[in-house]
Amino acid sequence: MLNRLEDSAAIKAGDARIAFTTDSFVVDPIFFPGGDIGKLSICGTINDLVTTGCRPIGLSFSLIIEEGFPVSDLEKILGSIKSTLDEAGVEVFTGDTKVVEKGSADRLFINTSGIGIIGNGINISPRNIEKGDKIIINGPIGDHGTAILSRRKEFDFSSDIKSDCAPLNILVSDMLKASGKIHALRDATRGGLATVLLEISEQSGHSMDIWAQDIPVNDNVLGICEFLGLDPLYIANEGKMVSFVPEPDAHKVLKASKANKYGKQASIIGEVGPRSKKGVILNTDLGTRRKLDYQYGEQLPRIC
Amino acid sequence: MLNRLEDSAAIKAGDARIAFTTDSFVVDPIFFPGGDIGKLSICGTINDLVTTGCRPIGLSFSLIIEEGFPVSDLEKILGSIKSTLDEAGVEVFTGDTKVVEKGSADRLFINTSGIGIIGNGINISPRNIEKGDKIIINGPIGDHGTAILSRRKEFDFSSDIKSDCAPLNILVSDMLKASGKIHALRDATRGGLATVLLEISEQSGHSMDIWAQDIPVNDNVLGICEFLGLDPLYIANEGKMVSFVPEPDAHKVLKASKANKYGKQASIIGEVGPRSKKGVILNTDLGTRRKLDYQYGEQLPRIC
Repeated sequence: MLNRLEDSAAIKAGDARIAFTTDSFVVDPIFFPGGDIGKLSICGTINDLVTTGCRPIGLSFSLIIEEGFPVSDLEKILGSIKSTLDEAGVEVFTGDTKVVEKGSADRLFINTSGIGIIGNGINISPRNIEKGDKIIINGPIGDHGTAILSRRKEFDFSSDIKSDCAPLNILVSDMLKASGKIHALRDATRGGLATVLLEISEQSGHSMDIWAQDIPVNDNVLGICEFLGLDPLYIANEGKMVSFVPEPDAHKVLKASKANKYGKQASIIGEVGPRSKKGVILNTDLGTRRKLDYQYGEQLPRIC
Repeated sequence: MLNRLEDSAAIKAGDARIAFTTDSFVVDPIFFPGGDIGKLSICGTINDLVTTGCRPIGLSFSLIIEEGFPVSDLEKILGSIKSTLDEAGVEVFTGDTKVVEKGSADRLFINTSGIGIIGNGINISPRNIEKGDKIIINGPIGDHGTAILSRRKEFDFSSDIKSDCAPLNILVSDMLKASGKIHALRDATRGGLATVLLEISEQSGHSMDIWAQDIPVNDNVLGICEFLGLDPLYIANEGKMVSFVPEPDAHKVLKASKANKYGKQASIIGEVGPRSKKGVILNTDLGTRRKLDYQYGEQLPRIC
């Protein structure tokens, strides 16, 4: 099951199908513009869950705390967890706390796992995508990774970039109401949009074309990426859902996305090509076609 | 839900009831007599799950690895995880791996979460225990905690004590086949048998009497506990299930336990007293009655 490499596993349990996912969060710094490790841990797991089209029913929450971690910071983080759960309408059902000696962990690590119920008839998987599907993203890319980077000790430059960290379950539910035919959904976290598209291309066996001019990127993110020689296509996001939608329904899904607060800048960024021709082509503004590749070496550590 | 303080949460999801639990493992040392952090992480979560009487259907598995952790150690741990999963007949469905810089974590931390399906008509909870219920444990107490202690840098004395770390799902399934009337089950981990009984006494509102002479403790554990001034009643176990069974079924459950490899030394150790008289009384070999109390200060850190 693990080698399917999707964001969530789908498990048969009697009549029900259960989505199940886990993530450990080791982000550094733990407070960053637009969020903190607590909000991130809730959003990350909710967003992985909903890539199956499931209704999230509950999360687990487990803390590893370094001895001496300030109680006031812990309270701040628990507060942001609570408000994220309230916004998403999701509950924490089970938890665990471990404390380790000073020096045995870097302040605070959080694991969240999550379960959801996949409704009858819902079948969302990269395996379902077809030639002609439109590729939609719900907004600008690269905000999370560059926001984290801007606060790292080794950089620490001033910028107004905020992480896009957000729970996307309501957005996805709005999209699914707009079309019952969404083929695949993927949370564009570690490795960014490019990595996610490359993985889906491999899993589905389909090629894809994307158009640079249609991919939203904020100017402040572009500026930092140019300055540091980074490519926003490979920068992590924490509130970006990539969807694959048959052409006839693509505009309905786009419209539903734009009506949600986390989808205002949603855009159709590309199209699925024929099967048995894997690969992702970036069509640039200059009219060139660039074949994308994995860039694992350039990924930042502890981005989530 | 979190304030129910049971080992697993039970969640309604359509017609099904799902048990859901999580635990992070930070045990030090990561290799110890009788197991390692990998085996422990699988057993701990399986044993928490089955306290609901559920059939475990899958685990999640998440690693936080310190940069420089030897690959050979990781392979050893993954091997022991695999053999534990095989023995228990449980699968890992979803996973995650994070690597942090040298010095940002102490070698390896593991989180496992687990889900299971609670069959129709099964209702196992401390809230169900009744006056006259027999209290059964499946074997000797204190092995895990003293095995860990014996390998800590600050002690490091030689002993032949092995952790009791074991997956108890098949034992519990055998017990449930022997009696459909088991009222409550609890995994006697952190805080040991005494803490677990005190918690159940509070949750159920019932008093309990236990008899020292009926509580199995291995001689080598007793020896170390006397030497270090520890009470085995408060030492962590990782393969001990405490069950509460109506008197007419108690011997059937005891017999089923004894027939399982992890229950050979099972014993009826006590009896539930009347409601609205909380507390746990230890009846000693000398005929005295000692009221047990929480001993949080004495609990070892990083025992699991």
